[in-house]
Amino acid sequence: MKIYKKAILPLEFQANGIASGIKRSGKLDLALFYSDIPAKAACQFTSNKIQAAPIRINKKYLKENKDYQAIIVNSGNANCFTGNRGLRDAEETTRMLSEAIGIKKDSVLVASTGIIAKPLPLLKLKKSIPKLVMGLSRYGIDKAKIAILTTDTFTKEITVKFNIGSQIITICGIAKGAGMIAPNMATMLCFILTDALITQRALSRALRSSVDNSFNCITVDGCMSTNDTIITLASGASRNNLIDTDNKYFNLFLKALNIACLELAKLIIRDAEGATKFIQIKVEKAKNFAQAKGVALNIANSNLFKTAMYGEDANFGRIIAAIGASGVDVKEKDIRIKVSPLHKKEINVDVSIKQGNACATVYTSDLTPEYIKINAKYN
Amino acid sequence: MKIYKKAILPLEFQANGIASGIKRSGKLDLALFYSDIPAKAACQFTSNKIQAAPIRINKKYLKENKDYQAIIVNSGNANCFTGNRGLRDAEETTRMLSEAIGIKKDSVLVASTGIIAKPLPLLKLKKSIPKLVMGLSRYGIDKAKIAILTTDTFTKEITVKFNIGSQIITICGIAKGAGMIAPNMATMLCFILTDALITQRALSRALRSSVDNSFNCITVDGCMSTNDTIITLASGASRNNLIDTDNKYFNLFLKALNIACLELAKLIIRDAEGATKFIQIKVEKAKNFAQAKGVALNIANSNLFKTAMYGEDANFGRIIAAIGASGVDVKEKDIRIKVSPLHKKEINVDVSIKQGNACATVYTSDLTPEYIKINAKYN
Repeated sequence: MKIYKKAILPLEFQANGIASGIKRSGKLDLALFYSDIPAKAACQFTSNKIQAAPIRINKKYLKENKDYQAIIVNSGNANCFTGNRGLRDAEETTRMLSEAIGIKKDSVLVASTGIIAKPLPLLKLKKSIPKLVMGLSRYGIDKAKIAILTTDTFTKEITVKFNIGSQIITICGIAKGAGMIAPNMATMLCFILTDALITQRALSRALRSSVDNSFNCITVDGCMSTNDTIITLASGASRNNLIDTDNKYFNLFLKALNIACLELAKLIIRDAEGATKFIQIKVEKAKNFAQAKGVALNIANSNLFKTAMYGEDANFGRIIAAIGASGVDVKEKDIRIKVSPLHKKEINVDVSIKQGNACATVYTSDLTPEYIKINAKYN
Repeated sequence: MKIYKKAILPLEFQANGIASGIKRSGKLDLALFYSDIPAKAACQFTSNKIQAAPIRINKKYLKENKDYQAIIVNSGNANCFTGNRGLRDAEETTRMLSEAIGIKKDSVLVASTGIIAKPLPLLKLKKSIPKLVMGLSRYGIDKAKIAILTTDTFTKEITVKFNIGSQIITICGIAKGAGMIAPNMATMLCFILTDALITQRALSRALRSSVDNSFNCITVDGCMSTNDTIITLASGASRNNLIDTDNKYFNLFLKALNIACLELAKLIIRDAEGATKFIQIKVEKAKNFAQAKGVALNIANSNLFKTAMYGEDANFGRIIAAIGASGVDVKEKDIRIKVSPLHKKEINVDVSIKQGNACATVYTSDLTPEYIKINAKYN
């Protein structure tokens, strides 16, 4: 298994990123990922009850169809809380793109991120789509990965390669998201492209499992977004022995996908808005994974804990209060807490609660005046 | 019904506040409330699973005993996560005070607030208690209300007077708490003294109801404290017609207590750490009170909403995202949001969700760089 800290497209994929004018700054804001071969898709979306229009359109296409070839993504506008018009706009985006490429409308998936409750400037998209398609190339990924960003200060990308027999399989992941990150994947977009030949059920199961241990274990501010989207496309172009849930290749694929998802999730936290610390919270000796994760997230989402980390003040009391507030019926004498030196940028908080043998790790950042500055005036 | 924005002791109560040295600054840090007549007590404590030693001692005394005469309160040290030693220290505090006054140990209730996980400096208390008791007076309330404060920038006090026949009943409330305020009463102390003659069940029911609509409807940072305590003492000194749950006096008493609790709760929010805004969030057309309150609290606890308020940016999207994240199955077209002008210090957010006819109001503050400054270095 080889890991590259850079996006390298799998076989038969192309990509592109351009500036369509949605972002007033003139920065790249429209991305396209394209597979020459119809691919299987597995997706996960926000659990927020208010879901952005592109998510609702994707859900519709995922019911209707089995094969997908493109993902179009805009940044700068979330197309959320935009009513029926938003739905029409998202669908129209996929239609325009499908026509420009010459594929079916419902083989195009769509994602948006940016400001909420403003209509998508469809005319700008219409004008830009021909250029977006014309520019597709193997190296377009380097623009696409920038075009999906909003307040991010760096790109999040990773490639994992492994063999099945003599065939090399590539999993390439890119992501965006720097604020509003909460468990259940708040304002986070992630696109995972692979040339693996894999059954639908194996792809879906692998994604669910990987997300649960990665994107659902990170939090910046506990705020759950309306637009979180993970889309995985598996084209089969590498012609490996078919991966299925009941054969030996599945664990290989799962392991590679886990690595990709966890690395992207950690990169998101490293770029958390205004953060000065990267904090890993490990809760051990819990009854089960859900309990361990619950306690860890309760600590991670405590503003008092987060400000203490910023102040490099090992305020154990706040950790204890957060553990107690999580609802776990734990006695104070059974709690053990260890915090690594606070002057460093990477901090490990280890908590043990004497309830059982399960364990979970959550990643978060500190809460800083810079976070407030970024979020007090976001436009 | 007459309302005074000042603590005025009911009949037969005395109080005092002194500096015992627990606070290194030399500020007042030890308070005593005393009733000449044995009084009934009703209490509410934090729902955090980790509870400070004084709360555990109070719970024991509330089981053993029926009448109470004193409340001793220290600030600067929360006596929490202090193990068996903490329990002994809290009990010893009540013992020392009871001896100094000449009453039973378990007729003394106790509360602590301040830093967690440090042992209570019992020797300082021992040396100070005689002075604390000697100085008891009708006007000592003006020192007591200061001695319970921690990061508060002003005292929280109110007095409500009303008549039952020709008897005047006084309800006097004082409170502290400026950070770590969450529903279920995070780091909040409140003492309510009244000379009303009232049955135990009426007193308990009235307190529960009032707290649910006041202290449980405020949040600063969503962090739940280990020390929250509300203690109400009713001495009966005003010799009014007995108030009971099934007679006409109950609603009068309840109304007065509601006014006192709500005013104190709002004062706590007005003094929220680093806040520049006082925000009232009213959710209407909910299925029931719990749902309305749940939605309102989810908005109130969203860091993105709070920073937007600080930035005077009416970011409706963040309110919508918070409503969706609350788990209420609401369609976006059914949501109505109204936000009052943001340049003012007092902001009203009115939300309507078309689920039913229930309504709840929650109070909160904005999230500011100053909040972080205060909490990054708390000692």
